[in-house]
Amino acid sequence: MNFAQQWHQTVQKKNSLLCIGLDPAEPEQRSQDTIPPGTSKIDWCLSIIDQVAPFAAAIKPNRKYIKGMPREQVKLITDRIHKHSMIAIIDSKITDIGETNDAAFFHAQQEGFDAITFAPFAGNMKEAVAQAHARQLGLIALVLMSNPEFEQIKNATVNGMKAYEFFATQVKEHDADGMVIGAPNGKNHVTKSDVKRVKEIAGNKVVLMPGIGAQGGDAKEIIEIFGDNTIANVGRAVIYAENPAQEAEKYKKMLNRLRK
Amino acid sequence: MNFAQQWHQTVQKKNSLLCIGLDPAEPEQRSQDTIPPGTSKIDWCLSIIDQVAPFAAAIKPNRKYIKGMPREQVKLITDRIHKHSMIAIIDSKITDIGETNDAAFFHAQQEGFDAITFAPFAGNMKEAVAQAHARQLGLIALVLMSNPEFEQIKNATVNGMKAYEFFATQVKEHDADGMVIGAPNGKNHVTKSDVKRVKEIAGNKVVLMPGIGAQGGDAKEIIEIFGDNTIANVGRAVIYAENPAQEAEKYKKMLNRLRK
Repeated sequence: MNFAQQWHQTVQKKNSLLCIGLDPAEPEQRSQDTIPPGTSKIDWCLSIIDQVAPFAAAIKPNRKYIKGMPREQVKLITDRIHKHSMIAIIDSKITDIGETNDAAFFHAQQEGFDAITFAPFAGNMKEAVAQAHARQLGLIALVLMSNPEFEQIKNATVNGMKAYEFFATQVKEHDADGMVIGAPNGKNHVTKSDVKRVKEIAGNKVVLMPGIGAQGGDAKEIIEIFGDNTIANVGRAVIYAENPAQEAEKYKKMLNRLRK
Repeated sequence: MNFAQQWHQTVQKKNSLLCIGLDPAEPEQRSQDTIPPGTSKIDWCLSIIDQVAPFAAAIKPNRKYIKGMPREQVKLITDRIHKHSMIAIIDSKITDIGETNDAAFFHAQQEGFDAITFAPFAGNMKEAVAQAHARQLGLIALVLMSNPEFEQIKNATVNGMKAYEFFATQVKEHDADGMVIGAPNGKNHVTKSDVKRVKEIAGNKVVLMPGIGAQGGDAKEIIEIFGDNTIANVGRAVIYAENPAQEAEKYKKMLNRLRK
């Protein structure tokens, strides 16, 4: 079963498109939205997973926040995710030469993840897909980020195409399992026609959509275009809420309304 | 003291441009060039550091290979590097939105690194330099990779420039501490005139040069152009040698011959 099939099966089972971004910031790291001082990071992560599990289809720990967590603890996280019949995506955005990328795939496999994110900066998506698949991992490639500084990268010209079209072409040609597309929200540089263009090129791939807002307006157009292929990620707004379960439920319902 | 000054001071003190790439592959990961089965990864890393210390000016652990190593162990590594008066560079090639990049900078600071590598895929080098500096880290940005698949990225057009010129421009404008430039070797797509062009744009920045061959022919042109700003990285050829100290000494001497 490939990653897309795994995702669709999970969406059916959980009746949810919600993915929870697990970004456990330490109290020393920043002034707000952190795990409580004195809390064990692993215990906090496991507790969040338990709380959101009834409402989410996937959990996406961000590697940048769990550096320094021993493999045995990361395995506790993926085990817990799977125990709740969810998908475990490690958000690493790896971008190195093949030999080094494969070290990342090796670790992600050892840790028990189902998929990993990849940034196509080095141009080696073909090799990365083959390597990830050999490690039983789905590869989710960055195609269209929504941060303002990405606009000039997006509009670069690669091989006669806009860069985001080039990355989408690579996803298609090399059969990557999914892609990251930032949601258009009327305030960022991503437009509905950009998203349609990506689908035209890459086909109906699984789409990891980060950063949807509390009202869900941002999710509307991606779900309209990609339907149940949408992995709708919500991070801070759920994990640092007073009641993560309640927030997760709210997002699940909001996303389900957009599915019809 | 900024990162470039720290590097130059170290080059003087150690009379070396050599940086050792610390890529501890596990025996389960691949069939050759791994730490010996049954060996503790941290002990192996510390032993390599001790062996190469008389000949190297920097050690560059690759994050992809030390995932799952607890923070306390990574701190043992940076402490050992500093004890031997070397520079500690974490090769992470981070490439995410600012909030997430800052989590990586936080961890690298907690672990005791002096600098971190960065891939400018998301377009946010300005923000990343400011964040890294606030965490007392030098930022070394990918500008020109030498793997074959990078050629089409290098020749992309961004803001009317070739992409590698654009990245070099960002290094200059945002005052990044260094850049990664693959060594031209007559067999890859990197030419001497590419390297000169990068210097013309970015100025005389510190250059992290990966993957120089055993004969050092690859290092010649970068050292000719960037002199003692060159951080000359050698990984596998030293760390998996029968006698790492002897190999490190060979590389140190070879590089020093190129300095004059």
